[in-house]
Amino acid sequence: MKKISLLGSTGSVGTQTLDIVDQHSDKFEIVALSAGSNIELLKQQVEKFRPKLVSVATKELAEQLMSSLPASIRVVYGEEGLVEVATAPDAEMVVTAIMGSRGLPATIAAIHAGKHIGLANKETLVTAGHLVMQLAQDKGVTILPIDSEHSAIFQCLNGESVKQIERITLTASGGSFRDYSREQLTNVTVEQALKHPNWSMGAKITIDSATMANKGLEVIEAHWLFNVNYDQIEVVIHPESIIHSYVEFVDSSVIAQLGLPDMRVPIQYALTYPDRIASNVDRLSLSRIGQLNFRPIDFERYPMLRLAFECGKAGLSAPTVYNAANEVAVDRFLKGEISFLGIEHVVEAVLSKHNNCKVDSIEAIVAVDQEARAIASKI
Amino acid sequence: MKKISLLGSTGSVGTQTLDIVDQHSDKFEIVALSAGSNIELLKQQVEKFRPKLVSVATKELAEQLMSSLPASIRVVYGEEGLVEVATAPDAEMVVTAIMGSRGLPATIAAIHAGKHIGLANKETLVTAGHLVMQLAQDKGVTILPIDSEHSAIFQCLNGESVKQIERITLTASGGSFRDYSREQLTNVTVEQALKHPNWSMGAKITIDSATMANKGLEVIEAHWLFNVNYDQIEVVIHPESIIHSYVEFVDSSVIAQLGLPDMRVPIQYALTYPDRIASNVDRLSLSRIGQLNFRPIDFERYPMLRLAFECGKAGLSAPTVYNAANEVAVDRFLKGEISFLGIEHVVEAVLSKHNNCKVDSIEAIVAVDQEARAIASKI
Repeated sequence: MKKISLLGSTGSVGTQTLDIVDQHSDKFEIVALSAGSNIELLKQQVEKFRPKLVSVATKELAEQLMSSLPASIRVVYGEEGLVEVATAPDAEMVVTAIMGSRGLPATIAAIHAGKHIGLANKETLVTAGHLVMQLAQDKGVTILPIDSEHSAIFQCLNGESVKQIERITLTASGGSFRDYSREQLTNVTVEQALKHPNWSMGAKITIDSATMANKGLEVIEAHWLFNVNYDQIEVVIHPESIIHSYVEFVDSSVIAQLGLPDMRVPIQYALTYPDRIASNVDRLSLSRIGQLNFRPIDFERYPMLRLAFECGKAGLSAPTVYNAANEVAVDRFLKGEISFLGIEHVVEAVLSKHNNCKVDSIEAIVAVDQEARAIASKI
Repeated sequence: MKKISLLGSTGSVGTQTLDIVDQHSDKFEIVALSAGSNIELLKQQVEKFRPKLVSVATKELAEQLMSSLPASIRVVYGEEGLVEVATAPDAEMVVTAIMGSRGLPATIAAIHAGKHIGLANKETLVTAGHLVMQLAQDKGVTILPIDSEHSAIFQCLNGESVKQIERITLTASGGSFRDYSREQLTNVTVEQALKHPNWSMGAKITIDSATMANKGLEVIEAHWLFNVNYDQIEVVIHPESIIHSYVEFVDSSVIAQLGLPDMRVPIQYALTYPDRIASNVDRLSLSRIGQLNFRPIDFERYPMLRLAFECGKAGLSAPTVYNAANEVAVDRFLKGEISFLGIEHVVEAVLSKHNNCKVDSIEAIVAVDQEARAIASKI
């Protein structure tokens, strides 16, 4: 029985993680849950999975939740509550399915406590990859990627030596506006942007797919996870999202991981690694699909991806600024404050105002993050 | 320095094996070579690679070769000579790049002598898989597949558990007549049949690709190599030969091995396994290729593949008969004695005359093989 703490239980990855736990209740047990403000869903989850510890966003929400739960379940809240869930003594593994840079302190706390990490919070490595990977190594903690692309690379590297990697290629569906020209992007709406062709995900990541900021964050994440240079990372557009990513080795041999787009596969793999267990998701049939397409990335078309490579190569605080500015810009787009193309203008403007600097602590990262957010909200 | 005996040095896989040894002469050394009757090429190879032992087909060829080589190089011949090369005391590894069922006794002898096997002779497993795999296990010998499809599966299984395989899929280019109907096959010529769209190989295997007998032999080989049932093996037509084969695991995740069609990649992998070393072969770019296509197998169109599955499932002597009858039929087609569709008629007729029987020894296999050949040559 593997005991799991789940951060972000009411989101897309969170609910799918619980689906898998439910399906394999002989193998997994949920000992702690955290969510934001979706109290109704959280209540159902708590009743079903009976964790000992639950965290929500605020004191008010915690009180509201407590009134309807048995007294044996401890309810906590806020940033401290999140850290408590991340370090729950029983948990062997923490799944960080929380969005955005607020997942960072809790993830760091979990690693400090020696928990293995199922990582769906990509901002953790984007903003603090240098600190997190070192800490994980020191603590003997395994970071198991849950993003479909990174899970693919991780699976391709099974039994292989990281030293023999020639190149990593992340596939990108191209997002909602794959077949739009730059001109056509000028007047797109939030509603259009939220229609992802292959994956059903949250709003932020769906917009990030359309701008390719999501792929940019994944590039930086891959750099840290697999210890490869940015020159060894490529992105290719693959509209069908069947090949989830691939690795070329020094001998020219390429190993790829494939499947129908279903997040439950990478989530389950992170939970069962190094084993695999049966799954009831739909099976891939290449002869039924018939055709897989690929085309090169045009960095002029996707400036957010170009900026991510630039920030990754620049290192230091640049990736933190990229991520923070993008989070604010996407939020502002979703609220109707700026246009779709405004997202890249905001991020580029914030980066141009920023003096790249060392960030040797979580506090330093948080300070840079806050400053970038303040600037991004006013451009 | 890995010391290698090479059986079949003047054929397609043999010469490419020597290319790799030449390119990495700091890592590999050829201690023994065998060839058939291509004495001119063999002489050049001996001068370049300086083996201590060389074997040729006949006494006459041996005498002819001896007269032009230094006395320090031992020259042997015939079936005994082949066994001597396969068991050369210095060799750690034997590459069996010899065509047809005559590779069997030498491969068995090599395993008995504790040599690791780079297996390019697929008939070894087709006719004697039950004996060979057991012997390899008893002797602690690794069988490293050199066929591109089996090397692909072998690479996909790196770090994975064979018990977690759901299905193996072998890709098939479809061969020279991929886009021909059954009717159009009636009058095809030897010359047309020898034009393979993707791979440059010997005549026998190119014809076998056109009939899909080659894929049939590979299915039986995969059954033995990876310990999977025939119901777990599928074939899909993939005209570009970029995905060389793939494995679906119980969790629905698919791992595939890809590359441009170049036999030097699987050959080198067998030589360096479990390592990979740099290679100067052309690199795969999916964005340059643009599109990969797949379509289901039509067993009516490819009866040789249907027969292979039937023989594999029937077991016992049936695969030996299938292989022997096919070898004779292809030879007769190449000589102009029978038509292209005559190949399947011969094989089906020989199989229908055969009473499936136990074959518990190499002698029993050889006897069945001989009998099938005798019948096939007269139909």
